[in-house]
Amino acid sequence: MNNQQKEFPGLGLVETQYAQLCKEGLALDSGVTIGPLTVAYETYGKLNKNRDNAIVICHALSGGAHAAGFSADAKKPGWWDVMIGPGKAFDTDRYFVICSNVLGGCYGTTAPSSIEPETNKPYGLRFPVITIRDMVNLQVRLLDYLEIGKVLSVAGGSMGGMMALQWVVSYPQRLLSVIPIATTHRHSAQQIAFNELSRQAIMADPQWNNGDYYGDEGPRLGLAVARMTGHITYLSEPGMERKFGRRLRQRERYGYDFSKEFEVETYLQHQGQSFVERFDANSLLYLTKAADYFDLSDGFDSLTEAFRGCSAIALLIAFSSDWLYPPHQLKDVAKAIRRSGGDATYYEISSDHGHDAFLLDYEKQTPLIRSFLERAQNSSADSGT
Amino acid sequence: MNNQQKEFPGLGLVETQYAQLCKEGLALDSGVTIGPLTVAYETYGKLNKNRDNAIVICHALSGGAHAAGFSADAKKPGWWDVMIGPGKAFDTDRYFVICSNVLGGCYGTTAPSSIEPETNKPYGLRFPVITIRDMVNLQVRLLDYLEIGKVLSVAGGSMGGMMALQWVVSYPQRLLSVIPIATTHRHSAQQIAFNELSRQAIMADPQWNNGDYYGDEGPRLGLAVARMTGHITYLSEPGMERKFGRRLRQRERYGYDFSKEFEVETYLQHQGQSFVERFDANSLLYLTKAADYFDLSDGFDSLTEAFRGCSAIALLIAFSSDWLYPPHQLKDVAKAIRRSGGDATYYEISSDHGHDAFLLDYEKQTPLIRSFLERAQNSSADSGT
Repeated sequence: MNNQQKEFPGLGLVETQYAQLCKEGLALDSGVTIGPLTVAYETYGKLNKNRDNAIVICHALSGGAHAAGFSADAKKPGWWDVMIGPGKAFDTDRYFVICSNVLGGCYGTTAPSSIEPETNKPYGLRFPVITIRDMVNLQVRLLDYLEIGKVLSVAGGSMGGMMALQWVVSYPQRLLSVIPIATTHRHSAQQIAFNELSRQAIMADPQWNNGDYYGDEGPRLGLAVARMTGHITYLSEPGMERKFGRRLRQRERYGYDFSKEFEVETYLQHQGQSFVERFDANSLLYLTKAADYFDLSDGFDSLTEAFRGCSAIALLIAFSSDWLYPPHQLKDVAKAIRRSGGDATYYEISSDHGHDAFLLDYEKQTPLIRSFLERAQNSSADSGT
Repeated sequence: MNNQQKEFPGLGLVETQYAQLCKEGLALDSGVTIGPLTVAYETYGKLNKNRDNAIVICHALSGGAHAAGFSADAKKPGWWDVMIGPGKAFDTDRYFVICSNVLGGCYGTTAPSSIEPETNKPYGLRFPVITIRDMVNLQVRLLDYLEIGKVLSVAGGSMGGMMALQWVVSYPQRLLSVIPIATTHRHSAQQIAFNELSRQAIMADPQWNNGDYYGDEGPRLGLAVARMTGHITYLSEPGMERKFGRRLRQRERYGYDFSKEFEVETYLQHQGQSFVERFDANSLLYLTKAADYFDLSDGFDSLTEAFRGCSAIALLIAFSSDWLYPPHQLKDVAKAIRRSGGDATYYEISSDHGHDAFLLDYEKQTPLIRSFLERAQNSSADSGT
């Protein structure tokens, strides 16, 4: 083991790459065509000779292409480094793993903060409203560019899980298996409500300036409030109680003022403030809206009909204390896949980490995913595809 | 039935009264003394000769003294009119019902928006931080003023339920029974987190101006966001789904913009905006902080010890889908009262109205409360008190 391996175990230092795609433009669900588009992506492991060991990883709301290894610049581990690497759930000794930043995200792929060719200014709210399907369509363009036909699997949690499910319905011929985690086939009223709350918090900030704030400070306070909302919903009630309870931060007794004194207040404010340093408020508007619009049964008689004829085998993982994406939602997806004649395995992992469990509880997910991917590979070998 | 009775059934038109109390000042938990204080209150029914048929009703965060009947000015029914009146749960043919606006509220009792005698300007953030116990202490001053020694019962939901519980511990000799509804003996980390989110939304608004906005517009946008947070937590997930689902407001299809298009978005924005017209942002800061500070076991070895020697019989009501004040919290209170040697009856009412159920599900609460109040009255007659 050399020094770099010691300092950066697993995949070591990794670099984000950029593909220039859709020179003729990408037709969006809204009817608008946008392009050319830049897509930021990272890959881990090696594509085999048959080019059939690729796995697409889809990130959640605040994620990016940097899913694993240590970033060459900031030396930060990727958002799912516990799951992707040699010997891990997505084993880079065996698979070629690809993660790309979604359309509208703010980590290198074309987004509201990108320069609009026509005006030579950042898009801001002139960026077209996008859907989960638009994001998946762009991912498939990236696979075309990488000359990969059919992938072994598409996996992701939360919004990434929605993308994985959209793959099954939109591109049934281009994947062998799918792993949607802590997600749903469509947002409930409560899920829309929390997203709308985040959007309103941003838009209430005068610094948002109708989305035209690039070069200025931007809606820092509004974005922080939006992120606080997120973090409350990412933790479970018992998990939060275990982690913080009613503990005071520095004081022995109440201070009788409005400073942050409970530990949970400090946590939320810290999460809010650090998010402001790394995320673009307009991207949060666009991505939450895409998630709210997402309804896999839209245009079909039922969710079961949406899955009809889709051959990908599915591993669905939910977490017992996830109240943002409660297990019953993904269980319903598993049922619909089975009713359509498909092959779905549903697991509810016991955890008090709430929605965050998909990022944290890697030990429980790893054996499920490893054996499922082997099965997907074997089924491919059996059928000769 | 005359015309007024037809138009305003039940208690008819009622008027808020104002008491000038604490000329020497009220000593607060923070160590500060504040006074003189104005208390806004309403009464319904008649005080009997023995002056022993009084019931104190405690309001929740956004409530006021106008609990029942129709207000003389706006002709609006009180916030618990379904529960208070002739033949209702709190039967004004039998009981003398008193409801007062809490210290720090914004419906007539001294609060941050009141004029500070020393400066002749609104207090704003110079108003001292208050606690649930401070609110109860002021309520007891009102009873002294009304020359009522011992009350038959103290009842309230949410923050009002905290006040009712504080009565039991602080003034065991002054009440025969207590009815805490949809409440807790102390906030969990998640409950503090939601309150902190509301406070941050207000304080993020530049119009809040560190609490000094009276005469100006004030933090309208921030307060609306805070109230949206509240309403998400007041409804249950299945209740919200039944009420709104994914229904669009006016459109047949998605509009691909950031206007409000889902019905649930319209509902939240309406709730936020109408709240701004009727509530003071600083009051929300003070009342949520008081609720966060509330911990009935504070200063005792356990919650059971807090209730030791308290003779009030208790009826505790929780609602199955209330996830803001989940039933297990009030069940724990019932257990502690019983362990202390007290008499506690706990009911969990099945409802999908979430936390709002205490305001809406009057039919299920009424028989429980009516028979409990009879029992309290009889036990009083038995013991000769």
